[in-house]
Amino acid sequence: MKKVYFDNNATTRTDCDVVEAMGKFWGELYGNPSSIHLFGGSVSKYIEEARQSVASLINADPDEIYFTSGGTEADNLAIQGVARHYIYKEKKQVENCHLVSSQVEHPAVIAQLSYLKEHLGLKSTLVGVSSCGDIDIKSFSKAVSTPGTLLASIMMANNETGVIFPIKELASIAKKQGVLFHVDAVQGLGKLDIDVRDLGVDLMSISSHKIHGPKGVGALYVKRGTPIEPLFIGGHQQHLLRPGTENVCGIIGFGKACKNLYFATKNGVLEQEREKISALRNKLQEGLLSTCIDTQVNGNLNSRVCNTLNMSFEYIEGESILLLMDEMGIWASSGSACTSGSLESSHVLRAMGVPFSMLHGSIRFSLSKYSNESEVDYCLEKIPEIVKRLRKLSPFVK
Amino acid sequence: MKKVYFDNNATTRTDCDVVEAMGKFWGELYGNPSSIHLFGGSVSKYIEEARQSVASLINADPDEIYFTSGGTEADNLAIQGVARHYIYKEKKQVENCHLVSSQVEHPAVIAQLSYLKEHLGLKSTLVGVSSCGDIDIKSFSKAVSTPGTLLASIMMANNETGVIFPIKELASIAKKQGVLFHVDAVQGLGKLDIDVRDLGVDLMSISSHKIHGPKGVGALYVKRGTPIEPLFIGGHQQHLLRPGTENVCGIIGFGKACKNLYFATKNGVLEQEREKISALRNKLQEGLLSTCIDTQVNGNLNSRVCNTLNMSFEYIEGESILLLMDEMGIWASSGSACTSGSLESSHVLRAMGVPFSMLHGSIRFSLSKYSNESEVDYCLEKIPEIVKRLRKLSPFVK
Repeated sequence: MKKVYFDNNATTRTDCDVVEAMGKFWGELYGNPSSIHLFGGSVSKYIEEARQSVASLINADPDEIYFTSGGTEADNLAIQGVARHYIYKEKKQVENCHLVSSQVEHPAVIAQLSYLKEHLGLKSTLVGVSSCGDIDIKSFSKAVSTPGTLLASIMMANNETGVIFPIKELASIAKKQGVLFHVDAVQGLGKLDIDVRDLGVDLMSISSHKIHGPKGVGALYVKRGTPIEPLFIGGHQQHLLRPGTENVCGIIGFGKACKNLYFATKNGVLEQEREKISALRNKLQEGLLSTCIDTQVNGNLNSRVCNTLNMSFEYIEGESILLLMDEMGIWASSGSACTSGSLESSHVLRAMGVPFSMLHGSIRFSLSKYSNESEVDYCLEKIPEIVKRLRKLSPFVK
Repeated sequence: MKKVYFDNNATTRTDCDVVEAMGKFWGELYGNPSSIHLFGGSVSKYIEEARQSVASLINADPDEIYFTSGGTEADNLAIQGVARHYIYKEKKQVENCHLVSSQVEHPAVIAQLSYLKEHLGLKSTLVGVSSCGDIDIKSFSKAVSTPGTLLASIMMANNETGVIFPIKELASIAKKQGVLFHVDAVQGLGKLDIDVRDLGVDLMSISSHKIHGPKGVGALYVKRGTPIEPLFIGGHQQHLLRPGTENVCGIIGFGKACKNLYFATKNGVLEQEREKISALRNKLQEGLLSTCIDTQVNGNLNSRVCNTLNMSFEYIEGESILLLMDEMGIWASSGSACTSGSLESSHVLRAMGVPFSMLHGSIRFSLSKYSNESEVDYCLEKIPEIVKRLRKLSPFVK
């Protein structure tokens, strides 16, 4: 049976040259980079090279890159780290602190804010989005002008719909109010060109396993001078902001994945890949729209990352579609992998006001450079059959 | 030139079969374990197998094992997690909360407590040790009887001296006072048999890269029912206590390293390995004591893990010894890798009252199953020459 992996927003295949780059650090060069002897010290040099590769990709300086265990930790370090600075160091009263975000963020941001509100009393405002998933800039402006606002945290591209947010504009609005800006760019990296200086952001979260690097590693970009406190306290690693023995192989792999993207940008290969991915995604979209009635695409078609397609199939359950797709070897998802398992409908689609009959039948397809046309053709052959079969069973079909 | 790696308390070589076990998860099985399709779901099964392997090694249940990014995160999750429960959930006033630890803990515990005291106002008492590095049990009993004591955090084996603490006794004392007990067993795992039920601890930190597993992964054992809150908020992974996409390869590797230890315990191989390592360590110790005058071993000789030797060479600097050893291809350390780079003398040796002239000339040798007699012989040939050479230059030598 054919296998089609269209769930690249959940995670991606680790590139062969990334696996190869990590190879010698398991056995040959297994030292602790913090050791002062040559054997450990030589590893430290490679860690710094990886830091440089990550920094170069986003136009940061290496000392502004802090490796974390992934995007979730980076988001938590950014938000709680900034809050800690103001509460611990500047002795601001928690009840006078305010954070701003949007209703469509990843759980690492949105669930975090709700936790901090419930348990710490840290106030926050979640800005809404339009039916296309675009952020309400007027509401954002209003929210960041709330007295006591410390930080705004907005994602670069939505993980479920692929909708791109105008980060440069939002960061500039925040800056005018003296509010720090964090961007969760986990779904943006690799799909969009990123220049932290041009964007004007203070903090940015990225993750390795979304760009064909290993899982378990990510980074937080922290613009020099940004007030932030650590979440972990321990050794002297990473300027005390993120201590602990470095995940050497993970960091080396992440560095290599970033280096690959950097060179693919420079030599034009990345642009070609994006065009290819976008054409495949569009073929899938048009094919499904034309063969399945009562179907809609969720998210602004004019402002979406190249690889993502979020479709709602009216009257049927996304989970059932996925199950039958799975039996056919087609792997996609109903939303974020981080929220899977819960029976709730997508908070992203709810924020967009997607009608109830469409809400539960949504599927996210996310492609990668490894995707090809025969996979799209296979989907276009199988999925309409699945939809037809499920609709026959649906009590909601008129 | 010969290469001798005697810095296994800093990190260990990743076992070949551990590297092999991770292999298929880079390419063949790269799915996100949280995905609901078969491709991701099949990865989740392996993660749970790894969790079982970790649990079996310490006689815990799999649902009591939470994977982290390493020992530092585990220590921080344990201490700040418990504190958060009492402060956030039970609304205890910070100034009425108290923690107990010892003066010789790893920075992830001792620096954390000092940070929490300075910035959060969370009180703590650090119990002292004898000149042999043994914990003062009477002071410990007194400290945990302080009203408001939430948690005691004591290490199983000291990373610098190898001295073993009587965890079962200490946990029982804490329990009688209704105080939770966390053990940092990062340096104990593999060197000592560990049974969390028998020890009676509530929380235990362990790390993969100290037992020939990959770096960047560790775990916190949390006894069922222990009150603890997360540090990161995000997806639904790991019962919400430690969210984020799992470090799949790291976890698989850690699981394999634990499985190796489990079987080596059962078939008696581990006991033989420990005897071999201990004999090599003792040969190194006796050899250095007999060839270098004005030298002492730090730590209780009758209660030390098998692989560690901490020696002080009077009148000379540890860093200079290490430098010359490095030139000879002998790799050891002056203390914790996590404190290297700082010019301060070891807080562990200071707490033991090691005299000033001995304090700065201490070296930690830490062996592993890969160590052999010819390496010890090489050290015994080279190190006395180094010590002699440095003492000739020392202004302190009488």
